Amino acid sequence: MADVIDAAIEVELGAIFADARRRAGDLDPHYAALWRSLAQQSSGGKRIRPHLVRLAYSGFGGTDEALATRVAVAFELLHTAFLIHDDVIDQDTVRRGDPNVAARFAARAIRHGTDERTSGIWGETAAVLAGDLALSRAHREIALLPVDRTRRGRLLDILDRAVFVSAAGELADVVNAGDAEPTSMPRVLATLEQKTAVYSFECPLAAGAVLAGASDPAIAALERFGRFVGIAFQITDDVLGVFGDPAITGKSASSDLREGKRTALIAHAATTAHWPRIAAGLGDPGLDEAEAEEMRAALRDCGALDTALRLADEHVTLARYELETAELPAPLAAELGAIALRAVERAR
Amino acid sequence: MADVIDAAIEVELGAIFADARRRAGDLDPHYAALWRSLAQQSSGGKRIRPHLVRLAYSGFGGTDEALATRVAVAFELLHTAFLIHDDVIDQDTVRRGDPNVAARFAARAIRHGTDERTSGIWGETAAVLAGDLALSRAHREIALLPVDRTRRGRLLDILDRAVFVSAAGELADVVNAGDAEPTSMPRVLATLEQKTAVYSFECPLAAGAVLAGASDPAIAALERFGRFVGIAFQITDDVLGVFGDPAITGKSASSDLREGKRTALIAHAATTAHWPRIAAGLGDPGLDEAEAEEMRAALRDCGALDTALRLADEHVTLARYELETAELPAPLAAELGAIALRAVERAR
Repeated sequence: MADVIDAAIEVELGAIFADARRRAGDLDPHYAALWRSLAQQSSGGKRIRPHLVRLAYSGFGGTDEALATRVAVAFELLHTAFLIHDDVIDQDTVRRGDPNVAARFAARAIRHGTDERTSGIWGETAAVLAGDLALSRAHREIALLPVDRTRRGRLLDILDRAVFVSAAGELADVVNAGDAEPTSMPRVLATLEQKTAVYSFECPLAAGAVLAGASDPAIAALERFGRFVGIAFQITDDVLGVFGDPAITGKSASSDLREGKRTALIAHAATTAHWPRIAAGLGDPGLDEAEAEEMRAALRDCGALDTALRLADEHVTLARYELETAELPAPLAAELGAIALRAVERAR
Repeated sequence: MADVIDAAIEVELGAIFADARRRAGDLDPHYAALWRSLAQQSSGGKRIRPHLVRLAYSGFGGTDEALATRVAVAFELLHTAFLIHDDVIDQDTVRRGDPNVAARFAARAIRHGTDERTSGIWGETAAVLAGDLALSRAHREIALLPVDRTRRGRLLDILDRAVFVSAAGELADVVNAGDAEPTSMPRVLATLEQKTAVYSFECPLAAGAVLAGASDPAIAALERFGRFVGIAFQITDDVLGVFGDPAITGKSASSDLREGKRTALIAHAATTAHWPRIAAGLGDPGLDEAEAEEMRAALRDCGALDTALRLADEHVTLARYELETAELPAPLAAELGAIALRAVERAR
């Protein structure tokens, strides 16, 4: 079952991109290339959000795989749109170890004979537009769902919340990063809930449940579960971003430190006597491996690593507590409980 | 009638922004400020697209003003989203003579105590997100329309086309600007059709007509009319951008020349012996008023001004020809014919 619908998601995404590329080619070859780079950016994702949609849907007895696939695809396209616009905001050129939309289009401009400055404009233009197109397509998938008005309305509300809250989180993230003062722990947690937990965990679970006709208390429990797991997941991700094996995480274990990313690790460290050992190098683009290693030692010494891991565990506990309701079918609760544990086990 | 529904559009837009601002304030004051700057950017527009939706809807006998208002608002929000992301791509800070979303947020960052570089990041972040939010809201307005599945599906297809084709036009505009060679007249016309005519004229008219239950041949005639008028309108706008009175157009009569904007004027000039007089200063950010005046003289001498005005007139003729069908109610055809004439009369 899992394999069947996972393949269905790839097929559906592939069909969307192929159709758009063909239509784009009727207008302009560069535009077809834009859709090709959008498809490339989408491929290789872990498909966490589609998986959660499917899990909630089938967990509440949903059997229409085509329907669930379309909702799952909508959340994956939303994710793609957010990643692309996040890269525009952060002026990144690499995503999952590969050149992103902007980098691909900048390279295309150079091949086309433009100068460096113009190639940068091509890249940014392509990324802004690719995000808009993926976002629009996500909306369209939900808007066209062949379900009754009430159910579609609720799914549109979930999608609206996903966009609305994520934008708040993205803005907060940038505001935090520009602040001279360290970001407090409550604000770090609120930001990652808004930026990641809501659209990545709460909303896909709620959408799958609504689509399957779950009860309101069941949906509310899933939403709370999703937010807690999402927070645990992101805290863990941020721990792995500093302490993880680059061969597994796919990114340098120094890049978050070089960027000065405001994580739970940093929020804790800033309240301790070890802070000067960390503050000096944090956000320094020229940080070398020895300096990063010294910062990691300081983050261990000051208790930031232990605190972050404990915070993640506590959120998993809170999440699993939400599963102890008769409203949730037992097999679904068991599967979600296992997912919650895996969210933090990656950092052990 | 016109006044009633125009007021209704302002009321509806105001309600959307007020509700979002309130919800945003629950999350973060900066986020509430983002919605405030989005509302400010939306205000002061000419509301051409809502006007066209309303005209087509009532022209085909539609009487549900609340319904027409929501579709009209969707196209205005789409327009706002495109303007905001267009400014991100062009790195502009002024829109309609006022600071745009990015400029307002950059100023907010400075007041917040950030350095110059960080304020630029705040500005770009706010603009990327504001565009995403306006775009999402446009989709939501159409998706939630209380009409039957077939009609909503057709409206969603029109919205999809508006987004899809405009993105192609925006990309083509940037590709043209980065090209060392002058852009040919056919490519200039194709780009402005894609970037402006489709979403600003064709799609609003088609949406109003579909909503009112117009016949397929009538809708097709309106769509062709819209594309031709849209091209005439944009050629005229580009003429006014160089030869217009800044007090009326609201922008410097040299800025298009400084930017090196690829217009019909320039496409024609590039094919004439006067081209060196224009090419030297075109795209020079340091262009002074005397040099701009000399370029205007050259554009007159080489026949570019006459050619552009004639091209606009020809597209108005083509547009008005589309109105000569029994499928269109006579009062609607008369009103649209007058709009077509006004599109070019501004440059006389």
